[in-house]
Amino acid sequence: MALLVVGSVAFDTVETPFGQAQEVLGGSATYFSTSASYFTDVNLVAVVGDDFPEKHINFLKMRNINLDGLERTGGKTFRWQGKYGYDLNEAQTLNTELNVFEHFKPKLPEHYKGADVVFLANIDPDLQREVLKQVNSPKIVAADTMNFWIESKRDSLIETLKNVNILLINDGEARQLTGEANLVKAARKIISYGPSTLLIKRGEYGVTMFNEHGIFIAPAYPLEDVFDPTGAGDTFAGGFMGYLANTMDFTDETLRRAAVMGSVMASYNVEDFSLNKIRDLDYKEIETRFREFKALSHFEDI
Amino acid sequence: MALLVVGSVAFDTVETPFGQAQEVLGGSATYFSTSASYFTDVNLVAVVGDDFPEKHINFLKMRNINLDGLERTGGKTFRWQGKYGYDLNEAQTLNTELNVFEHFKPKLPEHYKGADVVFLANIDPDLQREVLKQVNSPKIVAADTMNFWIESKRDSLIETLKNVNILLINDGEARQLTGEANLVKAARKIISYGPSTLLIKRGEYGVTMFNEHGIFIAPAYPLEDVFDPTGAGDTFAGGFMGYLANTMDFTDETLRRAAVMGSVMASYNVEDFSLNKIRDLDYKEIETRFREFKALSHFEDI
Repeated sequence: MALLVVGSVAFDTVETPFGQAQEVLGGSATYFSTSASYFTDVNLVAVVGDDFPEKHINFLKMRNINLDGLERTGGKTFRWQGKYGYDLNEAQTLNTELNVFEHFKPKLPEHYKGADVVFLANIDPDLQREVLKQVNSPKIVAADTMNFWIESKRDSLIETLKNVNILLINDGEARQLTGEANLVKAARKIISYGPSTLLIKRGEYGVTMFNEHGIFIAPAYPLEDVFDPTGAGDTFAGGFMGYLANTMDFTDETLRRAAVMGSVMASYNVEDFSLNKIRDLDYKEIETRFREFKALSHFEDI
Repeated sequence: MALLVVGSVAFDTVETPFGQAQEVLGGSATYFSTSASYFTDVNLVAVVGDDFPEKHINFLKMRNINLDGLERTGGKTFRWQGKYGYDLNEAQTLNTELNVFEHFKPKLPEHYKGADVVFLANIDPDLQREVLKQVNSPKIVAADTMNFWIESKRDSLIETLKNVNILLINDGEARQLTGEANLVKAARKIISYGPSTLLIKRGEYGVTMFNEHGIFIAPAYPLEDVFDPTGAGDTFAGGFMGYLANTMDFTDETLRRAAVMGSVMASYNVEDFSLNKIRDLDYKEIETRFREFKALSHFEDI
């Protein structure tokens, strides 16, 4: 089943203790789509400027991502610059240039409108609803957001959440959104806003999923070399939603496997800059790492 | 099989955002022994002053902890005072009075010397070796330590580690001991110092165990109300070692279950001040929470 995503396609300039990358391909929708493309067809909605090179277009096409919804307009593509210290859990944003993103009004191609599965990546919550209005009758809507929107557009974000089934955010955002220090309490509050399932992303500590069936904790893969965490959350979301769109099963059991699949994809992504590591994975590698996750957390009953 | 533990028995004064407790029963050996007592007989080695009340002695006896190795001497019992902010992962030590602990020379009663399973709680590494020398031929030796000994007695600690099979420390201590920011690299280095199994305690993020069989990650129980984390690490160690002493099986499979058992005990401990919550648990509660841990991390293969 085709998966619709709206988000950013960008150039990133990133510095980590292990190296740097200048104006490389990035953006939430890019990481998401690439990751999801291993599991399902993806319909992308985003905007780029006339400085966006053909090689990146070709790469996305090569991954079978439908680009009919990628607007190409005069001006510069969205740019983000960030830096990580040895604590790779949090980026310091050095610079953000919205550029063509500033006046972006997403308009869905006709054949996108029947989408069953929708992911609203981290963009202005007004735009998230704008996209959602154009989808006929989605079965599952998932969303991400960030501290910037929680601060500056809280009411609009709460409005968006009423129509979201699955929210994926990090622990700091969950605390900020609810004013609750304790994550279990924060989760209960967020579920009262609309989403029936909440995934809290905790970087190197994995992911915790809350829904009416209880709590599921997926560890992060213990890597010896984390090179660049940029895009890890979007790559996670891509694996998670891609797996759901592939199975079209939304039981707790499948949501759990999807959360592990997201963790698998994110674990590959952080091993190199930009999308280098997830450009061309073998599906066998994905299955192997999924089984490694199983071995990581397995124990027998007493 | 009786489990030998050497460590501190103390009075704690603790402040958390949820309340405070004055001069309550604490100490690494106290938390450890109480937790382990649900699984095995415990032989305690420690020292208290003449201010240590009979009610605490009676409590430890009630838990079937053998106190022949608890020296009672003139002077004041060890005291610790600490404070936690909303980030309950780290205590701020406000005051430490070693008192009778300062000149403590542990001397094992004859019937303790045949111990098969030994836990050297967080004390001076010189004393840890002093105790070990008095044990005839232990099958498994486990130890804990802290930043203070890593800084001030590194060589002695490294000497102790040569005779330790299982080391239990937190993530900050693992990084400090090895100079490695990455935990997988830190773990490999620590294993080269002697221990064949390393458990890294990560507070609300659970426990990661490293050995030749691979890596095991146990989550922490997602509690809505963490009241007081004091003693969580020692309570974890008590459940872990108690379960091992009970089974006398040291395969990776049993070590994994033991790590979950430690997590179960620690999850109860943090629900109240001092040992209030683990004074008198029903074994059925322990089994129930063990199964909840299973449900927390369970997912089916793809």
